[in-house]
Order: sequence, then structure tokens, then C-alpha cells
Amino acid sequence: MPGLASETIGIWVAAGSRDESAETAGSTHFLEHMLFKGTGSRDAKTIAAAFDRTGGDSNAITAKELTCYYSRCLVTDLPNITGLLVDMVSNSQLDVEEFERERGVIIEELAMSADDPGDVLFDDFDSLVFGPHSLARPVGATKDQARVLGHHTVIDHYQSTYIPPRLVIAAAGGATHEEVLEMVEDALAEAGLGSRADVWSGAGNGDAASVAKGSHLGGAARVRPEFHSGKSHTVKDIEQLGIMLGCEGLPEGDDDRFIYSVMLTMLGGGMSSRLFQSVREERGLAYAVNCVASQFTDTGTFGIYAGCTAENAQAVVDLAVSEWDRLAQETPSQFELDEIVSQLSGSMVLGLESSAARMNRLARSEIFGLPLESPMDLIERVRSVTAEDVSEMAGRLLSRPKALALVGPAAEVELP
Amino acid sequence: MPGLASETIGIWVAAGSRDESAETAGSTHFLEHMLFKGTGSRDAKTIAAAFDRTGGDSNAITAKELTCYYSRCLVTDLPNITGLLVDMVSNSQLDVEEFERERGVIIEELAMSADDPGDVLFDDFDSLVFGPHSLARPVGATKDQARVLGHHTVIDHYQSTYIPPRLVIAAAGGATHEEVLEMVEDALAEAGLGSRADVWSGAGNGDAASVAKGSHLGGAARVRPEFHSGKSHTVKDIEQLGIMLGCEGLPEGDDDRFIYSVMLTMLGGGMSSRLFQSVREERGLAYAVNCVASQFTDTGTFGIYAGCTAENAQAVVDLAVSEWDRLAQETPSQFELDEIVSQLSGSMVLGLESSAARMNRLARSEIFGLPLESPMDLIERVRSVTAEDVSEMAGRLLSRPKALALVGPAAEVELP
Repeated sequence: MPGLASETIGIWVAAGSRDESAETAGSTHFLEHMLFKGTGSRDAKTIAAAFDRTGGDSNAITAKELTCYYSRCLVTDLPNITGLLVDMVSNSQLDVEEFERERGVIIEELAMSADDPGDVLFDDFDSLVFGPHSLARPVGATKDQARVLGHHTVIDHYQSTYIPPRLVIAAAGGATHEEVLEMVEDALAEAGLGSRADVWSGAGNGDAASVAKGSHLGGAARVRPEFHSGKSHTVKDIEQLGIMLGCEGLPEGDDDRFIYSVMLTMLGGGMSSRLFQSVREERGLAYAVNCVASQFTDTGTFGIYAGCTAENAQAVVDLAVSEWDRLAQETPSQFELDEIVSQLSGSMVLGLESSAARMNRLARSEIFGLPLESPMDLIERVRSVTAEDVSEMAGRLLSRPKALALVGPAAEVELP
Repeated sequence: MPGLASETIGIWVAAGSRDESAETAGSTHFLEHMLFKGTGSRDAKTIAAAFDRTGGDSNAITAKELTCYYSRCLVTDLPNITGLLVDMVSNSQLDVEEFERERGVIIEELAMSADDPGDVLFDDFDSLVFGPHSLARPVGATKDQARVLGHHTVIDHYQSTYIPPRLVIAAAGGATHEEVLEMVEDALAEAGLGSRADVWSGAGNGDAASVAKGSHLGGAARVRPEFHSGKSHTVKDIEQLGIMLGCEGLPEGDDDRFIYSVMLTMLGGGMSSRLFQSVREERGLAYAVNCVASQFTDTGTFGIYAGCTAENAQAVVDLAVSEWDRLAQETPSQFELDEIVSQLSGSMVLGLESSAARMNRLARSEIFGLPLESPMDLIERVRSVTAEDVSEMAGRLLSRPKALALVGPAAEVELP
């Protein structure tokens, strides 16, 4: 991204909470925390200060299939930050005293999430639909699991997972491809981790302005989960009832992902979407109502989210199903389709200005083994979606078994 | 911002919830919602579609002293969006049926906020410290107040407030100053609102890459609130106790704002901050712990926020006060100060890449009558802060009467 003073760099690990067993539950997230607690040459405070000093945005995220350590900083700070990230990923000490202290922090983080009705709703939905599969578990596991997780489990996880070919380094911003490569190589050499020949599988497959190197998932043996329909209700003494109604969605990289994307946007992707207009604008029943989709390597979830009073919950669910059904039954107009294509295209072009968004896109392409298409190619793919495609997609999803998760006051709501 | 494909434009109104009386409470926020419900020439759906079509980020925000309608979009969409925003601000219909329907949406929004422990804590803190003053009220008022707010009250508010000199238009991005001026003039002409001579008080005072025009607060008659010390506890059956401990802070534009900023960052502004290191890293007592500051024209609040178990609350408060006191008693090292200066400078330079951040900065300068300093000037001002200044600031705040707001399970916590 020539002319940009900043760069976003991320080190990704193709492992997440779904790769844990019941015994190792929570270890991916715990390990993410521990990477900030010290390496052979840096203690926790040194690591924190090195990130903060840049004035940038540095953090880590653990998800169900991915872990990522990232920083957005000035290009002038990039050599230091690259060295730091590589050191954290390759030389973490996992000190046992730090480990026990961090347990308290993680339990507080899980408690904070338990007090967020939205977090609870999304966790409940996954728990409902993925049943006994590891995708059903919250990313950080439960507080009880975090309380008993063993130090050795996290060490095992680190040693078995934080190695090529599970690691991907992606970057986007003002530095050139060659500059980033050199910084990464210097960092790897400093960490005692070989040369370019050992590590790189080839030149960057990124667009001219970006770098994404590493390897695919590395053969994580994953079992595809079954989707379970049904209903759950976590009763909480709060004001709003949170509703998530959905079905199995599309996996990452599905051939129909552009159709899916158009359908999600048309049904519940903005303030002009059908759900927003019907539930909020025409009837004033909810403040927030929108579609939510998660993609995993072999499955996905599609959901309609809304928050409303318990008395209005059945009406909101009925309206949502009716809009979903109408989209399936009646081919949308070319005008409405053009509006959505414009929205998605504009969003893609605007997204090009964000080094963080581009770093993410590069990394996900690499990890999920998807072609890295240019924004113009992506816009072409969106433009090729027809109104009939969108209806067919809505109908395909509508015919699938459904799940309904509720969080909030007691309410009578039927599973459609 | 030459070369950027996007622009962020905002129309600001120098009026917020503090300008309401007990009778008109909630009218500013309600009016913000109503502006999306239709003008003389556009209905609600047309407005929503016009924003969505750009693929950008368009929304509005109501605060205690400000209201803002904004959009980030491609420069090619800017003429349409400028026309739309000007139309909304100047020709809103405030239809009574739409008004009654929107009441339901607003009540749902307030219910959602009531279920967010963090929102409740920040509202409680302001309510505690500002006592009978209008700054004490939540921005959207209470659900009961929203239930009875009259249509005529919102009309009155619109007619008396949404006029020059209370309006500021600010923009930053790929368009030139002159281009933005022309778009705004065209939009004003289309809305039947006179010519440049009527509206502009002069050329933009922004930096070369930006535009900020309009006028200062327009003489809103504001009464300075007294700060009330004390303690409040909203008991909720949740897992974490949210803690906000603070005192009166600095107002917007205070001469010492750069010292204040350094102090806030050193005490609780990042993962290397003293509070984060002491409470989280060394003791594992909390996941989130940081400083929070609000600035208003004539006052401000300073607070230390933390979330933890009820049993640890007293220990966390004691640690927070002890770190605050240590900063006041012992002049920090030049090394620590240099780290903070680096952090704040880096953050400013990185912020230059965001058209939204720059639009915000321009508008706030204009509204609060502050000089619009270049990033290099701002960095110089941060660099001029001494370690003694920082200690003095910590001590000055520490000597002020304190307030403590708690939200969560019952707990014994003393007001320091």
C-alpha cells in the first residue's frame, strides 16, 4: 500500500478451540495469553512496553479455528515488532508462576463474557447446534475448565502446534514485500529458526502491495460436526430477550459464497435490509436485527439475531421467518439486487484502505487455501450473482433443520 | 488526504443531552433517530438505501454536548451523501406516526443498554457525580422518560437547535477543500438554504487536506455542574463487579490537557501502564483495568475502571489508589516518560491515516473553539510535558473529592 506510513503484521496459527479435546479445553486461549508473559530474552513488562511504545494497536485473538498475534504500527517500528512477534511465537517461556497468575485473569475474562448477554447468546447457539462436537464449546472454555487446566497441557499444545506448516505470517501496509521478507528473516535468524530456504515455500502470492507466506492448515485432523436443530433458553433476569434463529450455513470458501454474501446483505445486512425495514422501521419491535454468519473449514452457521421484549419475541421470530420465506419464494427485483451489489462493491473498495483488513484477507486466503482474488475480481464475482441465485440460496437454507437460542426473561417462543 | 479514495463527512450539531431540561429529557437522542425517518423529498427507506448503497459506514451519534451525523464513503459517492445529510438536518419531517413507532425502537435501545453492565456503570458514575445537573442523565434519558416524551418537544428541539451557528460540517479524505465546499453549497442550495455568503464565516481553518467550517457553540447557555463525591452501588445478579473510581477531571481544551493525557496513559492507558501491570500482570485480579476520561466544555470526569470478583474489589481499589498515589508522590523516570511520549506520538501519526479520526478532530476543534494544531505541533506539546508535571497532575486529581460507582454483586468496598 504505497504511501502508507503504517503496516499491519500478524502471525497466525492454524489452530483454535475446535482442535482441543474435552481434557485440553481452553488451552488455545490460555496459550494466547501466555505468549505475552515472557520469552527467553523478554519478560512480560518488556513485551507490553515494546507494543505500547509504538502507539499502535497490538493484540491477539483466539477463535475456533485460528489464533492470531498482530500489531498495526508505523513502518519504522516494524522491524522491532516483527522481531517481538516471532520471539513470542517461537520462544515463549510458559513460566509456571506466570501461568497460575494468568489463570485468574482468564477467569475474569470469562466472567465478563458471561455478563454480556450477546456473548452468552452466540455461545449458546453454537453449543446447541454443534452438540457434542468441539465447535460447540466457547473459545475460552468454561470457568471450571479454566480452573483445572494443567500447565503441561498448555506446554504440549505449544510444542505440537506452534510449528510450520501451521504458522502463517501476513502483512499489509507501507512496507514493500521484500522489506517485510527481510524483517521476518532477520527475526527468524534472531530466534534461531533457520533461513529463507527452510521456511518459505515460494514467493508471496499476495497482491503487489502485500505479503502472505506460510502454509495451509497443516493437516489438522478435523471431524465435520453434525448440525443439531432444537431450542435453548438461558433464563436471565435482564430486560431484553436475545434471539438467535438459524440453521447450518456455508463453510469457508464454498463455491456459492458470493451468492450467500448477497443474500445475507439483502436479508439482514444494513439499515435498508429486509429484516431491518420490517422488524425495526415498519413495526418498531427491535433496535438491533441482522443476519450473522460464521464460516469454518467444513461447516458454518447462519443466524438471524434480534433483541426485543419477551412479549414481542414470537412476533419478531414470525416476521423474520416470513421475510426469509418471502426471499425464498419471490425472486428479488434487479433494482434491489443492484443496490446490494453496489453496497458490497463499495465496502470492498473502502476495505482496501485498511491495512488490518488486507492483512486479514491475505492470511485467511493462505490458511483456508483459497485463491487470493483482487478486489476487482471479487466485485466481478458479486456482480455475477443473479436474483434467482439469491432466492434459491434463501430457500436452500430455509429447508434446513432450524435452531433457536434465547437468552433473557422467560418467554413462549416456538421453534419455526 | 491526497490519494485516498474515501472521505468521511459529518454534520455536527453543538447540542446534546445536557442541554435538555427534565421535561425535554431524551429529545436530542430521539431527534437523532427521527432524522432518518424522512425529509420533504426522501422517505425512511430511501434514506437507508442511499447510505447502504455506498457500502460505507454511515450512522449518527448523540452525546452529552454533541450530536453528529456522519458517513464514510467513496469520494465518488460524496456529492449524494452530502446532499442527503444536509437534507436530513434541514428538512426532516418528524412525522408523528413515525415518531410513535420509533419510540418502541428507542425503548429497546435503552433496554439493551440497561443489560450492558459497562453502560450501566458509566451512567451510574455520571449520575452520582453530577447530582441534579443535566450532565447526570444518560444520553437517551430513561425508558420512562422516552415513553412520555412529546412529539412537539422534539419538533421544538429541532427548530430551535438545528440552525446556524450551532451546525458544523467537517470532512476529511480524498476530496479537496474546494470540492467539498462546492458539494456542501450545492446541497444547501438544493435544500433551499442560501449561498456561501450566508453560511460560511470564512475559509476552512483545517489543515491542507481537510475542511472544517461552521461556527462555535452558538452560545448554548450552560451551567457548570458541581462535582458530588460519594458512593453508589447498583446491585445486579451478575458475575463481575464493575468498579469506577474517580474525581473531577479536566474540561475540553484545558491548558494542561497534554499533561493530563500523558498521566492518563502512564497510569492506565495500555498493557504496560502502571494499573495494568499492578492489578492484572502482577496479581491477576482483573482482566480489564484502565483510566477513563470524559471532557465537557466546563468540566470533566477522571476515572479508573476495573472489573473483578466482588471478593477482590477492595484489593483492586486499594491497588488503584496506591498506584495513583505513587505517581503523585514519586516523579516518574525520564525513561518511563519517554515511553509514553513515544506511545502518544505514534498514536497521533497512525491516526492521521484515518479520515474518520481527522474529521472528528476538525469538528471538535471548531465546536469547542480550540486551535487546530498540526500533528507535529501536538507531538511537540506532548514532548514538552515533564515528569514533574505528570506527578503534579496525579497529585492534583488525588486531592479532589472522590466518587465510587459499583455495578454487580453485593460487596464491601470503601470509598477511598
